[in-house]
Amino acid sequence: MKRYLKTDEWNIIEDNFNADNLRMSESIFSLGNGRFGQRGNFEEPYSSDSYRGSFVAGVTFLDRTRVGWWKNGFPVFYSRIPNAADWSHISLRLIDEELDLAQWDVNTFNRRLDMKVGIAYRDVEVTSPKGNRLRIHVEHINNMAHPDLCIIKYNVTSINYTGKASLVPSLNAIVTNKDDEPNEKIWNILRSGATKDCAYLWTQTRREDAQVCYAMTYQFLKNGKETVANPIRIEKEQQAGFSLGAGMKPGDNITLIKYTAITTSLYYERQNLIDHSIAQAQQAKTTGWDTLVSHHLQAWADIWNEMDVTIEGDPEAQQGIRYNIFQLCQTYRGDDPRLNIGPKGFTGEKYGGNTYWNTELCCVPFFQLSTPREIVKNLLTYRYNQLPKAIENARKLGFKDGAALFPQVTSNGEECHSEWEITFEEIHRNNIIVYAITQHAAMTGSKNYIAKYGLEVMIAISRFWSQRVSFSTPKQKYVILGVTGPDEYENNVDNNWYTNYSCVQCLRMTLKYLEAIAGEYPNDYARVRRATNLRQQEEAERWRDIIDRMYLPEDKELGIFVQHDGYLDKVLESTDAIPPEERPINQHWSWDRILRSCYIKQSDVLLGLYLYHSHFDEETIRRNFEFYEGMTVHESSLSPHIHAILAARIGKVEKAYQLFLHATRLDLDDYNNETHQGLHITSMPGSWLAIVRGFAGMQVLNKMLSFSPVIPDNWKSYSFKVNYRGRTLHIRVGKEISISLIAGEELSIQIYENVYSLKEGRELNYEL
Amino acid sequence: MKRYLKTDEWNIIEDNFNADNLRMSESIFSLGNGRFGQRGNFEEPYSSDSYRGSFVAGVTFLDRTRVGWWKNGFPVFYSRIPNAADWSHISLRLIDEELDLAQWDVNTFNRRLDMKVGIAYRDVEVTSPKGNRLRIHVEHINNMAHPDLCIIKYNVTSINYTGKASLVPSLNAIVTNKDDEPNEKIWNILRSGATKDCAYLWTQTRREDAQVCYAMTYQFLKNGKETVANPIRIEKEQQAGFSLGAGMKPGDNITLIKYTAITTSLYYERQNLIDHSIAQAQQAKTTGWDTLVSHHLQAWADIWNEMDVTIEGDPEAQQGIRYNIFQLCQTYRGDDPRLNIGPKGFTGEKYGGNTYWNTELCCVPFFQLSTPREIVKNLLTYRYNQLPKAIENARKLGFKDGAALFPQVTSNGEECHSEWEITFEEIHRNNIIVYAITQHAAMTGSKNYIAKYGLEVMIAISRFWSQRVSFSTPKQKYVILGVTGPDEYENNVDNNWYTNYSCVQCLRMTLKYLEAIAGEYPNDYARVRRATNLRQQEEAERWRDIIDRMYLPEDKELGIFVQHDGYLDKVLESTDAIPPEERPINQHWSWDRILRSCYIKQSDVLLGLYLYHSHFDEETIRRNFEFYEGMTVHESSLSPHIHAILAARIGKVEKAYQLFLHATRLDLDDYNNETHQGLHITSMPGSWLAIVRGFAGMQVLNKMLSFSPVIPDNWKSYSFKVNYRGRTLHIRVGKEISISLIAGEELSIQIYENVYSLKEGRELNYEL
Repeated sequence: MKRYLKTDEWNIIEDNFNADNLRMSESIFSLGNGRFGQRGNFEEPYSSDSYRGSFVAGVTFLDRTRVGWWKNGFPVFYSRIPNAADWSHISLRLIDEELDLAQWDVNTFNRRLDMKVGIAYRDVEVTSPKGNRLRIHVEHINNMAHPDLCIIKYNVTSINYTGKASLVPSLNAIVTNKDDEPNEKIWNILRSGATKDCAYLWTQTRREDAQVCYAMTYQFLKNGKETVANPIRIEKEQQAGFSLGAGMKPGDNITLIKYTAITTSLYYERQNLIDHSIAQAQQAKTTGWDTLVSHHLQAWADIWNEMDVTIEGDPEAQQGIRYNIFQLCQTYRGDDPRLNIGPKGFTGEKYGGNTYWNTELCCVPFFQLSTPREIVKNLLTYRYNQLPKAIENARKLGFKDGAALFPQVTSNGEECHSEWEITFEEIHRNNIIVYAITQHAAMTGSKNYIAKYGLEVMIAISRFWSQRVSFSTPKQKYVILGVTGPDEYENNVDNNWYTNYSCVQCLRMTLKYLEAIAGEYPNDYARVRRATNLRQQEEAERWRDIIDRMYLPEDKELGIFVQHDGYLDKVLESTDAIPPEERPINQHWSWDRILRSCYIKQSDVLLGLYLYHSHFDEETIRRNFEFYEGMTVHESSLSPHIHAILAARIGKVEKAYQLFLHATRLDLDDYNNETHQGLHITSMPGSWLAIVRGFAGMQVLNKMLSFSPVIPDNWKSYSFKVNYRGRTLHIRVGKEISISLIAGEELSIQIYENVYSLKEGRELNYEL
Repeated sequence: MKRYLKTDEWNIIEDNFNADNLRMSESIFSLGNGRFGQRGNFEEPYSSDSYRGSFVAGVTFLDRTRVGWWKNGFPVFYSRIPNAADWSHISLRLIDEELDLAQWDVNTFNRRLDMKVGIAYRDVEVTSPKGNRLRIHVEHINNMAHPDLCIIKYNVTSINYTGKASLVPSLNAIVTNKDDEPNEKIWNILRSGATKDCAYLWTQTRREDAQVCYAMTYQFLKNGKETVANPIRIEKEQQAGFSLGAGMKPGDNITLIKYTAITTSLYYERQNLIDHSIAQAQQAKTTGWDTLVSHHLQAWADIWNEMDVTIEGDPEAQQGIRYNIFQLCQTYRGDDPRLNIGPKGFTGEKYGGNTYWNTELCCVPFFQLSTPREIVKNLLTYRYNQLPKAIENARKLGFKDGAALFPQVTSNGEECHSEWEITFEEIHRNNIIVYAITQHAAMTGSKNYIAKYGLEVMIAISRFWSQRVSFSTPKQKYVILGVTGPDEYENNVDNNWYTNYSCVQCLRMTLKYLEAIAGEYPNDYARVRRATNLRQQEEAERWRDIIDRMYLPEDKELGIFVQHDGYLDKVLESTDAIPPEERPINQHWSWDRILRSCYIKQSDVLLGLYLYHSHFDEETIRRNFEFYEGMTVHESSLSPHIHAILAARIGKVEKAYQLFLHATRLDLDDYNNETHQGLHITSMPGSWLAIVRGFAGMQVLNKMLSFSPVIPDNWKSYSFKVNYRGRTLHIRVGKEISISLIAGEELSIQIYENVYSLKEGRELNYEL
């Protein structure tokens, strides 16, 4: 835990400069616009410990896989989004000094991320080693309305300085990636240079040949008036820009507005990239700062109108949930099925910007409910497009007949991970993909996606399970041997309850939708059957047999599902038995010690109870929650919100609140001592789900939207919107629950046990 | 399987040149003398696919550990013996051609390793691209009597060539290591150069700073007469040597004798290395080829006198067992407790020349019985000297109070391996160290080593187990969770029977010898007690409790010990079910598939029955053998001889013979398609053990040496010597068993059920 940021409902504020917090703040103040983003690095150079990072969505690099001992099935190369050129670079030079917060005295310091408008502000007063005092004011915008545009305003006021001051904006390809081998080269510079007022840098990733082109132009003002600064061009191989100078005296100020266009080969023809990006940068200058900002503000206003959650009475929770929504939305826009969401988004190199099951577990249910836009369809299509590679991936591991294993980590559909216990064994990941498909049908009320795309994925995954299970003679049941469940603090276990249970659900859903699509979409059914060579009767029979005779470990005496075979042989202790200085255990304990302990990294059995909630009664949930929660260390960011939701459901509101806070302020309060590496972008929607699915108790029971709200003691109210089958509802929970239908046709809903009909424009009030 | 070598009782012969076999032959024809060794590379350059390797015992390099995902407890650096400078290099140049068997026509080719005398011969007739025909004859000796000396005779006869021919002997540091990163530098060249007739090369490994200095001189003869060859010095940074030329005409021959001294900082002061090695090389030349060869022959004669095994009626088996003894003895001399035996010896880079449990499992019992020299004491002392690091290693993993975990892989006592399932979990390795200590006491009849050294190791290992076991509430037994047993095709299993059983034996032996040493060596006992802070009563009580209540998985119905929890849930199939083209499975199957299959890499439960043979009756051995042998793929070289021994013991002689052949000709016949990587040096004594412990049925029962011989159908006889408690016995088994006491006091022995007394010089005959 680390708390030094100010609490504010709409702003993230750091009002004191402490170099020890710099890496964490650089993560926290990250900015993005769905197409690119960067850590909250100072624009000017910083000569001490810092972690600079700029990333461009979908632009990957093929790196050599490094492992100690090779295993058959490991990928030779793995794809990742590398640290790109730094397009925010602006240095400030006095006659013989250069601004550097690591070397200069920082008299006052304030930075503020205004989440309502998506602007990062920085105000600093500094004294140089030679005694020159300056005030710096910076505004940084990754424009949400103009997906190729980053605009920065950099203003310098002299307090006591007299002399020439230069601002030097540039595009800088001299970057290092933390994970690199010393001599590894990632970026080829194809061309760099400068025209009269526009600098450009054209780059390409090695082996994958993805291209990014940057172009920048500028306005330079002295005391608010645009001025000719006698620009000096900077044209180095890896850096292009301008040096812009003006004489200053105390009270004078100079301002640089840097307009940078960032374009990639994902969206533009390669041969046009330079021309196009130069044109974009120049167009931006013509449009001007104020107009560009107003477009940006409107884009954020639209997002908040859809997705904002209010919490009265708890500014920390309010700040946290908005921060999470803000960060997710500036990472991923949902408009391109080629893109997905890396666990760290644009905020760090870890996880390589790749796609994990985090997306389906945490982001899909958020987007499904929080917006009427078809974002989820794009996320599902992303996987559908990678189905052939998932089949190939399974084939490499010895599976056949069109069985698919989706990768644990991927950008292009190929497996990018090389730890056998994860790559080959964390195979439950297949099931959340089927879960996401069927939830999409349930929430939209349409089987259309399944008929057109989803069914093929479901068949391929069911075929995987059909080959992956084996029959145990002593148990006379199907078993799934050698897996890693969601709790990655257990490896290569047999019969992970969650894996076995979700496998059964997967097969069940495939059978259900096969029948439904055959009836309702006969042409699609025929097409899919041909395309997959489905031997319907034979395969369905096998699947039914597995459903009927799957082994699901359970301890009747304790009344719980057993995480996996042998779990109860462990010494079962509460997490309270771990000395606080040894938390998180993954930073202090050797792996074998973690493995043989009872401690659970993240929700495992409880994950199943959350996902398939309608299958289990409250008493079952309570017993399992009470058994497992105390042993869960929540060292995965995907965990606390699930426990929060279950806790709320069984009436443990205070516990739910603590877990909600953990999920919500994970990065702001640095629960796991790792915020400095980047933010937990894909887990951020968990806090939204904890409110909607947890406190408000939203479920779909018998196809009816249902709420059974609770409210933490210290909250006055909370409110949010949800979208369901074409309707948008607004829900406010305070002393009473108020639900109104903002858009869409009349709808029956359930509050606790009672059913109501909801009409557009009418608010339903229900005393809590 | 690959068979192209000729069968001969004393020679390994390749009489046909096939470039596809080159890497395998380079392994097979490896030479060493305990201090250094090299693969059977041609002395001259070879421009096509080849694997050159030269290694110097105990000279290690610290490499950076490379893993995909770091785990706490992994080593940052790992030590390995790198490929050293090539001291055998001799090239042959005609006017404008250079000998290269990859480019020249090879008319006849014969190479022969004479194991009786330890000389590798090569005879080749070649035609150059320009039509020049030559005969080459090479003799290569790594001198067993002069541990710093490699001598090579290289003879060239012109068949039709007229003109100048040059022989260019050099010391060549331009070598690559297969595993290297492209830019990794291993060797620093400290100095290189040449005096009038002596070239030298002084090198040092990076980070570990181990030094090797090479010096070479030569004799050059034309038609048998020493001649002045107008030597040209070669003095490059990484290469030093001479070019020696003479005019030739058809029928002429030239001969180079290259005398190379290889000295290291293990044995000499660093500042004297150059002087010393030059002096050694020059002394060798003075001594002369013939005398040096005669010393070498005597050294091998002494070894064979001790260790030779004869097999009448089966030349392949005879060749195989001599090959194994030959290779092991030229890898390890047993005279320096700082040295151990790398699994590939001097024949390849794999396993980094480091120490594995192979040593205690396979080499220690061989040396214990096959020689009266105190080799085993040195091998035990090697571990004793590393005890402080083993304690440190355990501490890193969270153990305390002087608990020790010896590394899985090491050269300097520090762990050099970084796969969590091995490094942290293959902890049964601790037990074979205790086993070796107690066997040494049993076979020598002396507790002296235990009193002086062994007891400390035993206490530290028992402390490890005391902390590593945990108590299972459901089982009401001690369990050992999360281990990898000897069968590495299972990872992170619970209650591996072998691990649990050997843990119990370990504790039992520690208690036994604690008591014995307290009685017989009170001073040592007091010293050890102080040094280890032993809380005798409390610790012994805990150990006894673990012995009494250890869980040992067993299936009463099947009458077998169960390899580990859950093993019987697998689909149990014979190895016959694996398509032959998928063998060995570790080269064809993905790791998860191997893990969840029933297939056993190497002896696991059966290993326990072999090591602790006197604890189990024949029927128990038979049932377990019949259950497990059919599922064992023997993809570890440490496996087949153990099964062979058990098969012989339960009267399955034909099966035992097949397994013996597998163990014995593993590399010569390339059973696992990997001889090209190097030889399985540390497994080689397995074939000797299969004869002595298997066919001859040698056991120690109630402290009495006992034999219950069988003989394979196709054998006329076999014979060997064993050493036991100061005696040397010769045993010959044919139609009858003949045992004579060659040296030592009278001894009672048992043959089958009968006890006899054996006196020196008298032969005992017993009808089979």
